[in-house]
Amino acid sequence: MADPVPDHAVEDDERDIPEGFRRLPWRSGYGLTVGPLYERDEAAGGFTRAFRVGPHHTNMLNNCHGGMLMGFADVTFGHIISHRTALNWITVRLMVDFIAGAPLGAWVQGTARLVAADGDFRTAEGRIWTGDTLVATGTGIFKVIGKRF
Amino acid sequence: MADPVPDHAVEDDERDIPEGFRRLPWRSGYGLTVGPLYERDEAAGGFTRAFRVGPHHTNMLNNCHGGMLMGFADVTFGHIISHRTALNWITVRLMVDFIAGAPLGAWVQGTARLVAADGDFRTAEGRIWTGDTLVATGTGIFKVIGKRF
Repeated sequence: MADPVPDHAVEDDERDIPEGFRRLPWRSGYGLTVGPLYERDEAAGGFTRAFRVGPHHTNMLNNCHGGMLMGFADVTFGHIISHRTALNWITVRLMVDFIAGAPLGAWVQGTARLVAADGDFRTAEGRIWTGDTLVATGTGIFKVIGKRF
Repeated sequence: MADPVPDHAVEDDERDIPEGFRRLPWRSGYGLTVGPLYERDEAAGGFTRAFRVGPHHTNMLNNCHGGMLMGFADVTFGHIISHRTALNWITVRLMVDFIAGAPLGAWVQGTARLVAADGDFRTAEGRIWTGDTLVATGTGIFKVIGKRF
């Protein structure tokens, strides 16, 4: 099987990355595989994570695959714990409702808010959208496992 | 950034694929990105899907990333609809509970069973394991969108 040109080789300036987003330095493992992902700090301590739907994210309909959106939900909703902290976490439960598709080329954004904290456990509600279209919403339960290493 | 050797270039006989599993012919998009995935028919119309945790699936702990397990849950739990049928489907809601990690090199397997059908909607319960270790369980709601194309 011939392998396609790795999508990671595409330069940021070819991706039309909106103002204020910086590329996350994920240079190995799953983060590199599904990347690149981007992040922007928002007012009041918030954040937005984002990615441009590339050919390596698509399903047969040329929309972003649900599995990719689940993975994006995981790293976005859970990030409410690690944003501006040194805390690391693992995912205990993740639920995502799929509302609309995100086509190839779409700039997909996501954020989350903390809704509960009990001991080491954190519950976050998140949403994912592109333009004016709500793509997915969901809830994650995460466990803090100490400082980032 | 230097790109690693694409994991897809590794031959199946280097992956130690158990008897009876065949590689899914996903040669583009997300399926290629996170693959290769495998499938085996089981008794009574059942199936097992599987993958070997590669370097392109890992988190910082060198376990399979939760996002990869979510994606695997999506294509495995929903497959109860398309296995031995020509039906296609989209994911409406997916919930996954993470129970144990799957380390680099693990042979991760998953299956599902249909628990409800109402109009075009199907509910499936699934589980994911490696060896004797239960890795994740979950529930998916899927919508049939017609014949596969």
